[in-house]
Amino acid sequence: MNKTTVGVIGAGRIGKMHTENLVHLVPEAAVKAVASPHVDREWAEAHGIAVCTTANEEIFSDPEIQAVVITAPSGLHAELICQAAEAGKHIFCEKPVAFETAPIEKVLAAVETAGVQLQVGFNRRFDPGLQKMSAMVRRGEVGEIQILRVTNRDPKAPPIDFVRRSGGLFFDFTIHDLDTVRFLGQSEIVEVFAVGAVLIDPEIGAAGDIDTAVISLRLANGALAVIDNSRQATYGYDQRFEVFGSSGNVFVENTRATTMGSSSTAGIFVENTYDSFVTRYREAFVAEAADFLRCVREGADVTVGAGDALEAVRAAGAARLSMEEHRPVRLDEITGSAGGGTTP
Amino acid sequence: MNKTTVGVIGAGRIGKMHTENLVHLVPEAAVKAVASPHVDREWAEAHGIAVCTTANEEIFSDPEIQAVVITAPSGLHAELICQAAEAGKHIFCEKPVAFETAPIEKVLAAVETAGVQLQVGFNRRFDPGLQKMSAMVRRGEVGEIQILRVTNRDPKAPPIDFVRRSGGLFFDFTIHDLDTVRFLGQSEIVEVFAVGAVLIDPEIGAAGDIDTAVISLRLANGALAVIDNSRQATYGYDQRFEVFGSSGNVFVENTRATTMGSSSTAGIFVENTYDSFVTRYREAFVAEAADFLRCVREGADVTVGAGDALEAVRAAGAARLSMEEHRPVRLDEITGSAGGGTTP
Amino acid sequence: MNKTTVGVIGAGRIGKMHTENLVHLVPEAAVKAVASPHVDREWAEAHGIAVCTTANEEIFSDPEIQAVVITAPSGLHAELICQAAEAGKHIFCEKPVAFETAPIEKVLAAVETAGVQLQVGFNRRFDPGLQKMSAMVRRGEVGEIQILRVTNRDPKAPPIDFVRRSGGLFFDFTIHDLDTVRFLGQSEIVEVFAVGAVLIDPEIGAAGDIDTAVISLRLANGALAVIDNSRQATYGYDQRFEVFGSSGNVFVENTRATTMGSSSTAGIFVENTYDSFVTRYREAFVAEAADFLRCVREGADVTVGAGDALEAVRAAGAARLSMEEHRPVRLDEITGSAGGGTTP
Amino acid sequence: MNKTTVGVIGAGRIGKMHTENLVHLVPEAAVKAVASPHVDREWAEAHGIAVCTTANEEIFSDPEIQAVVITAPSGLHAELICQAAEAGKHIFCEKPVAFETAPIEKVLAAVETAGVQLQVGFNRRFDPGLQKMSAMVRRGEVGEIQILRVTNRDPKAPPIDFVRRSGGLFFDFTIHDLDTVRFLGQSEIVEVFAVGAVLIDPEIGAAGDIDTAVISLRLANGALAVIDNSRQATYGYDQRFEVFGSSGNVFVENTRATTMGSSSTAGIFVENTYDSFVTRYREAFVAEAADFLRCVREGADVTVGAGDALEAVRAAGAARLSMEEHRPVRLDEITGSAGGGTTP
Repeated sequence: MNKTTVGVIGAGRIGKMHTENLVHLVPEAAVKAVASPHVDREWAEAHGIAVCTTANEEIFSDPEIQAVVITAPSGLHAELICQAAEAGKHIFCEKPVAFETAPIEKVLAAVETAGVQLQVGFNRRFDPGLQKMSAMVRRGEVGEIQILRVTNRDPKAPPIDFVRRSGGLFFDFTIHDLDTVRFLGQSEIVEVFAVGAVLIDPEIGAAGDIDTAVISLRLANGALAVIDNSRQATYGYDQRFEVFGSSGNVFVENTRATTMGSSSTAGIFVENTYDSFVTRYREAFVAEAADFLRCVREGADVTVGAGDALEAVRAAGAARLSMEEHRPVRLDEITGSAGGGTTP
Repeated sequence: MNKTTVGVIGAGRIGKMHTENLVHLVPEAAVKAVASPHVDREWAEAHGIAVCTTANEEIFSDPEIQAVVITAPSGLHAELICQAAEAGKHIFCEKPVAFETAPIEKVLAAVETAGVQLQVGFNRRFDPGLQKMSAMVRRGEVGEIQILRVTNRDPKAPPIDFVRRSGGLFFDFTIHDLDTVRFLGQSEIVEVFAVGAVLIDPEIGAAGDIDTAVISLRLANGALAVIDNSRQATYGYDQRFEVFGSSGNVFVENTRATTMGSSSTAGIFVENTYDSFVTRYREAFVAEAADFLRCVREGADVTVGAGDALEAVRAAGAARLSMEEHRPVRLDEITGSAGGGTTP
Repeated sequence: MNKTTVGVIGAGRIGKMHTENLVHLVPEAAVKAVASPHVDREWAEAHGIAVCTTANEEIFSDPEIQAVVITAPSGLHAELICQAAEAGKHIFCEKPVAFETAPIEKVLAAVETAGVQLQVGFNRRFDPGLQKMSAMVRRGEVGEIQILRVTNRDPKAPPIDFVRRSGGLFFDFTIHDLDTVRFLGQSEIVEVFAVGAVLIDPEIGAAGDIDTAVISLRLANGALAVIDNSRQATYGYDQRFEVFGSSGNVFVENTRATTMGSSSTAGIFVENTYDSFVTRYREAFVAEAADFLRCVREGADVTVGAGDALEAVRAAGAARLSMEEHRPVRLDEITGSAGGGTTP
Repeated sequence: MNKTTVGVIGAGRIGKMHTENLVHLVPEAAVKAVASPHVDREWAEAHGIAVCTTANEEIFSDPEIQAVVITAPSGLHAELICQAAEAGKHIFCEKPVAFETAPIEKVLAAVETAGVQLQVGFNRRFDPGLQKMSAMVRRGEVGEIQILRVTNRDPKAPPIDFVRRSGGLFFDFTIHDLDTVRFLGQSEIVEVFAVGAVLIDPEIGAAGDIDTAVISLRLANGALAVIDNSRQATYGYDQRFEVFGSSGNVFVENTRATTMGSSSTAGIFVENTYDSFVTRYREAFVAEAADFLRCVREGADVTVGAGDALEAVRAAGAARLSMEEHRPVRLDEITGSAGGGTTP
């Protein structure tokens, strides 16, 4: 087998997950090195990773390494992508590429100049259920798309520290839904109206963010869409999707670890959906990594690229502006450096 | 059994349905008379109704008749209620009471002056599923309400003639959802943002109406809500409801006539939901009628009154204004004669 | 409408249910008289029944009455059918016609001589779900039938007094499943092996009966079948059916009053199935009555006749013999007076 | 991490599956060697296995190898276990250990003498759904167990060559169900009545086997059980389980790859269950392997041992005798060399 040698930059929770997937579940990957400020040598060794460093440079300068996986903190993504591109590495980067459009446009230019590939971590696009759903939509089985619904609710509100540097709900969380609307709706978002609220934790409000939102959207193909978000669903990580059209609908319901259930005088009980994105999208993360390496190997266009990141960030920017100015916002208002940015 | 003598005004499709329910399924009712411009004597006789007339007056002036059921065309509702109130009859009236707030306020005054009861046909409030759902919410089982979702999609777009005199999607169709949001959300709607589109039938657009809509709302208790509407779901009458809160959620899924299903190489198949409100809400319509007669008999406050009709119409008016002016509209903008009105 | 005049014999729980269905939900019926040793005049009056008597004869001799509904205690069924036949009435009789084959054969002769119709109360054949299931099987959608599964569990063990005169589990309860296997399997039962146990209530054992059973069967068309029975399922009246064949399967799951459910940290709950045959098979009982009157009116063959009763009783007899002698029993062992009989 | 060095004997479809699981998904395993008559060096290399041989002896004599995984053809299992035990290796062996009780008893003696562990491949015991189900039963949540139901249907009848050397349906296929009944029922099987048929493929009959069966059982704790089997369910690998008791029931339904579905005029579709045991029980196979290595490491008793294999084989023998002699067979009739044996 022709393996691709990979270096990983950033070995926090997500970085370790991606690394372990690559090592154990993606036969086409050979993970040679991991760079992280807080390097966990025992973990690296257990997974057979030869090089363990605090210097990203060691990865960029290694001629054997063909591709890098960037899972450093979000604020560093754009800069790291540019460095990796300059070093001639193909790049997989976790979302978001940036909180603003300008750095994404810079990134787009950098990878184009370098002639390297850049895939962005919109993992849902690789979920088996969403893939089948999207395939049905593309085959025209729902007819003309009229309404899209996305429910995305986290099982547990994140720590306030995370909230502060997250970019805000729209950029950190809703951004997946905005990409999903584009993916399933097969059309660009043209207008956004967002209402947000602080209903779960006043500290989230104090940090300048919201924890609950309903976003209505209009797509270029005329379809309407609605996203509802919560930072805390006691019953688990709630992920539901529907595309409705002139011939019917197609949907993805919540998934569960088992099909066990029981009946008693109290009623019929089945277990909750997964309680984290790691378990819910386990297969998606593996497929995403495998797909990236396939594109690198075959020189094929990446499945989700910086252009997708840009469009999602523009929509997130429109959502924030809509909420701030309490009016519907067209995406063409969001240009240049508009939209994104850290929460105040 | 102490029966209440009832007269029915208007014997179209809905009028006949209510009448047959009263005759056969509500033992507390004795339907004595039906008034309709196109009177169907054979049908009346088959159901044991003694008086069959084209003159509403015959019902208003009959001292035996204690209660009237108004199922005449919507445009006549307000006037008929006032006449019935003056005649001292208790009143059940199909929704909508009117398309504007002013006539509803007049109606409210008329029934108060006459000391009669007026129940409005928001049938969903009597659906066994929604009743259990509402009871759970009221018992606090979802905790603080944060998000409400209502999906309401008709199986088949109505004839253009009906569209023209319907009052428009928000007043004719969404109005049920607006009442449902109030009912399940236990709070008043304070703001509405509506986007609409003509995606099903251009003739609906030519008639000045829309056939697809997404409406986002904010309630006085802080909760956010979203309604999605379509005039045509090929797979049936789509009725789904969710209340999400700090402790979890409660929902009502689509119902089906049977639990039959089958498996083959093509997958697993189950039958569609009902294809009309008559079958979907059969039990609700019966319970609604029985509840009205119970209130009349016991002198209890009606379960859904003109105040509810008023609030729903104000919200529908806000939705229409929001769509027309492309901005969020607060309900306190909708006063006096504002909001409602027929679509041209 | 051309109504059929009906007399009801036996006005216990089931008798009242059938009567109310006929009065309110079967427009083709005119219930003129009810005969019962413990006559409930108030109930009869409330439902508009003119004649209320303790003498069955009054019904048999009334020339206006065209059809009788026999819902007297099971032990009287066969004799009452014969009397009704002699009186020239068409007959609907609740199951079981008898606990032995001989009286059923006598009944068969009596109705044939009299030229009247006799329909037997195997209500499940009129359940909308089972009807669709059967239609699919008949259209060949499961291919060649290979395995049938019937789960039939009562919500609550009956009183010991009832158990004593019930004929035993196989004749009182399993008999529905035996008819269902014939109905869905489109073939006669040729062999039965039954295991029974007293696991719920030792008093049931003391009364000479069992409360739990698993019965395996072989049909003439080669298919295998299995029935499992319990007298007490805490979670409700458990009614599940499956036909499996060379092209796939078709099934009917438990039904529920509503589709309400909820999610919390404890998992996802939905409500239990119905807790009685009256609610579970409400529509079936109405359709059964309507179908009987249609057959009477049209002179059509009844949908479920005494021949079906006979076959089911033979199979119940085989099940009992199988359990007693602890061996598989062929139905052709059960002839003449064999099989049936009351439990001591 | 303290890894256990493993050798694999037999590298057919199942052998490769177990090997790949051990290499990639069980961090505690170090697979050093694979022995197979038709050795696939490329595959072994791709998975980093150092030694690839046609001589089992090479594995038995390697002092580094602590545990062996036996996935050779079933007919060789017992002999290979004895050799491995003599060599002092801990053993995981695919089911069945043998088709008769005598060789299993020999195996039991051999592993006891050698002081090594022997785990048998009843993979379902490690399925997350069945584990939760079993835990609920053990916690008493269904009360006293009264009825067990197991549906086990293969997606596609096996090749006739396989059928001939399979040991017959009961030993090759039903044996999993017999172990499951013991596992979920928490009690020994005391009596079996089996009916079988050839409904799918006459060649299976010509080979002396059956393809369809219904088996009813009685357990020592008084519970009744029923298993239904088919060699070919067009819609997939059908695996359903229920334990019913005095407090309610607990069940495991079929699982599916995704929760995608769709609605159209034709009804609502969801995708079929998995089409092979490899995908359906993927997690179970990994957990099984990890559990074996844990037991080896900790010197703990294995979770499923040769005693379980023996009981399942005795029950399979009883099923075959029951079918042959057309009578219920008690397990205590099956001793010594009775019961098992290859089908001619």
